[in-house]
Amino acid sequence: MTTINTPTLQTTDSDFNQQLQTRLAFDDSTDAGIQSAVTDIIAQVRARGDAAVVELTNKFDRINVASMADLTLTQADLKAAFDGLNDEQRTALQAAAHRVKSYHEAQNAECGKSWQYTEADGTVLGQKVTPLDRVGIYVPGGKAAYPSSVLMNAIPAHVAGVNEIIMVVPTPDGVRNALVLAAAYIAGVTTVFTVGGAQAVAALAYGTATVPRVDKIVGPGNAFVAEAKRRVFGQVGIDMIAGPSEILIIADGTTSPDWVAMDLFSQAEHDELAQSILLCPDADYVAQVRASIDKLLPDMPRRGVIRTSLENRGMLIVTRSMDEACEISNTIAPEHLEISAVNPHVWVDKIRHAGAIFMGAYTSESLGDYCAGPNHVLPTSGTARFSSPLGVYDFQKRSSIIHVSEAGAQTLGQIASTLAHGEGLTAHARSAEMRLK
Amino acid sequence: MTTINTPTLQTTDSDFNQQLQTRLAFDDSTDAGIQSAVTDIIAQVRARGDAAVVELTNKFDRINVASMADLTLTQADLKAAFDGLNDEQRTALQAAAHRVKSYHEAQNAECGKSWQYTEADGTVLGQKVTPLDRVGIYVPGGKAAYPSSVLMNAIPAHVAGVNEIIMVVPTPDGVRNALVLAAAYIAGVTTVFTVGGAQAVAALAYGTATVPRVDKIVGPGNAFVAEAKRRVFGQVGIDMIAGPSEILIIADGTTSPDWVAMDLFSQAEHDELAQSILLCPDADYVAQVRASIDKLLPDMPRRGVIRTSLENRGMLIVTRSMDEACEISNTIAPEHLEISAVNPHVWVDKIRHAGAIFMGAYTSESLGDYCAGPNHVLPTSGTARFSSPLGVYDFQKRSSIIHVSEAGAQTLGQIASTLAHGEGLTAHARSAEMRLK
Repeated sequence: MTTINTPTLQTTDSDFNQQLQTRLAFDDSTDAGIQSAVTDIIAQVRARGDAAVVELTNKFDRINVASMADLTLTQADLKAAFDGLNDEQRTALQAAAHRVKSYHEAQNAECGKSWQYTEADGTVLGQKVTPLDRVGIYVPGGKAAYPSSVLMNAIPAHVAGVNEIIMVVPTPDGVRNALVLAAAYIAGVTTVFTVGGAQAVAALAYGTATVPRVDKIVGPGNAFVAEAKRRVFGQVGIDMIAGPSEILIIADGTTSPDWVAMDLFSQAEHDELAQSILLCPDADYVAQVRASIDKLLPDMPRRGVIRTSLENRGMLIVTRSMDEACEISNTIAPEHLEISAVNPHVWVDKIRHAGAIFMGAYTSESLGDYCAGPNHVLPTSGTARFSSPLGVYDFQKRSSIIHVSEAGAQTLGQIASTLAHGEGLTAHARSAEMRLK
Repeated sequence: MTTINTPTLQTTDSDFNQQLQTRLAFDDSTDAGIQSAVTDIIAQVRARGDAAVVELTNKFDRINVASMADLTLTQADLKAAFDGLNDEQRTALQAAAHRVKSYHEAQNAECGKSWQYTEADGTVLGQKVTPLDRVGIYVPGGKAAYPSSVLMNAIPAHVAGVNEIIMVVPTPDGVRNALVLAAAYIAGVTTVFTVGGAQAVAALAYGTATVPRVDKIVGPGNAFVAEAKRRVFGQVGIDMIAGPSEILIIADGTTSPDWVAMDLFSQAEHDELAQSILLCPDADYVAQVRASIDKLLPDMPRRGVIRTSLENRGMLIVTRSMDEACEISNTIAPEHLEISAVNPHVWVDKIRHAGAIFMGAYTSESLGDYCAGPNHVLPTSGTARFSSPLGVYDFQKRSSIIHVSEAGAQTLGQIASTLAHGEGLTAHARSAEMRLK
């Protein structure tokens, strides 16, 4: 038995909002040293290509290879990793991949279709949806090397119709993660380069003799990777720049307190900056969860990380009502939101901002992390206010379709002519007027 | 009659690819001076809020106001601008707004709907689509102040369901553009601040006492605005960072050469960096377009800009075939693509990357710029490889919905447990295992 000093806040406290904001604050600014280091790395890779990538990789990953060939994995390498798994792992990885694929196929059917309509005068308008040609997936190495992330990044790209999926993953000290490579094999990754950091991002964005230039780079990384993605944005597409992971649980007090405590742990164990928050109108229940936390923590292998996370960034919040809990959740816009309640449907309708919503007592966040089907790459740090889970739509883009009929050109030409003259753009106006009879 | 030195390239030239790449190259790097100026402006606005915004606006826009109240326009101001338009302009602006709205409503019906499905064991999966709460629209002042851009940015936000639309527009030397304010009135903009530059972006991203913090900032601007958007990305969402505008015309030689020449002008007149390209397999026709260019240019009020653009960045390219023209277009991924051909359907199927595709001789790009309906905010500089026209989807985001049944938790729990142990995340595994019977 131990005591974890996670604060309990009451929304009735006069300074509640200030306490909440202080606790939520997270400094994501990039220091100037990282900015200039990344600028330099990108310039080197653009100027010297493969040679710079090899040199920087030897330096940062403490290895000693002669050429890009030593940093390139073949399909045979990936298959060997897959074949080397034990039966249980192989089956679980395949089952997860299958479910992730099914979900993203359903998503593609909902929002990945071209469409058009014809107006009375014969003018056709619409949008054509096409996949990206080639994408790059950044997979972190070292302690945060997660095979599940490989599935979650590569499978939507595949379902979207992307032809070539290039994965980069650093292997510090030359150590390869077999589960990560096996996941790349299952997910249909085309080529893997064992390169990481800003040098990997630069190589994918601009291309080298060996690394093909991609159209978009997705996947999480450290501060150097994040800054590099920010700098190459425009040259290529990028996904969100991820912050620390968060869970927010809205509980009505009917779920086993042990389950809720363990769900809070499952986020806290990611890293010391991860944030776990409980919102509940029942003060007695909150006390029970606190007791479960104290009881269960000693058995956790990552208890040091969990304790630091819960004490520095965790919150147990007693609210006036479930409605108020939903309102507070909307101001936080959490990455993961569990609605652990008897009738979660009542509350989900009040939620405006969340990366993923886990409904009911049986839906632990960990099921979504691995195998429920929806993507586990989700907007962090309040960015669910304006962004979405990774999906097939991140690997597709749209082209407007405009086919104006001769009759349509008469109506539209008049309007365009007036507005173009109003903007002082005579060639625009003339171009429309020339099509008038 | 005049002679414009736009080069004619032949795809059969041995150095064609090199000539093409040289001509396409465009340096979009941000110089270090702009980077540090923008960092400083953002820091000032974060630290001193309204006071900094007023001070910086007085300095950069050469005005002298006392407070934010002097930089805030009311609905009455916008209505007065609208009422002051002449009948023709008012009617044209309303007709354009109506068509843009209809198109984006159709788009919303296609890809803006929540969806879910239920599995055999009762588990429900899906996505909930919700609008952003509040967005900021940056509208350039001065020479590039376009009312049509106000419609194209604000209307999709409205259709998406956004509650509050905050517009910022600089008024250098205190000069307001009545058409821009009238467009804001029609498009349903909530509030207008006459503030621009990096200070406007910072105020929208972080909020001040007067300017409400928004969730996303869209709209084009100069290098300071682009760098500011890049820096606040993550704090808020942003749209693409726009480069110079481009048109590429694939012609089969059946459209009046005068029409094609004027369509090339309509892009070139935007600014000297704009790029106009013709691809056609018929050398005689290309010569006719060149003659039309020489003939029509002297009558254009913006002939100086058009000439510079066509001579420095324009290209007339004779291809081996229409198929080859489509292939080259795909490597360029143009913002605007006109397929000026008798049967454009044959060729549109071969197009993989383009912001908007204008099909047939009657579909001049200018119709799309103002009133066809589809958005004129399009990916530039080859970014159509990975990005889409501005649309309702830019003002909405998705939340995954996961509601696992008790039976589902048994199947999924086993898989999650195996994979979580494989990643060394014991709390994730325990959280799934606790739900097993």
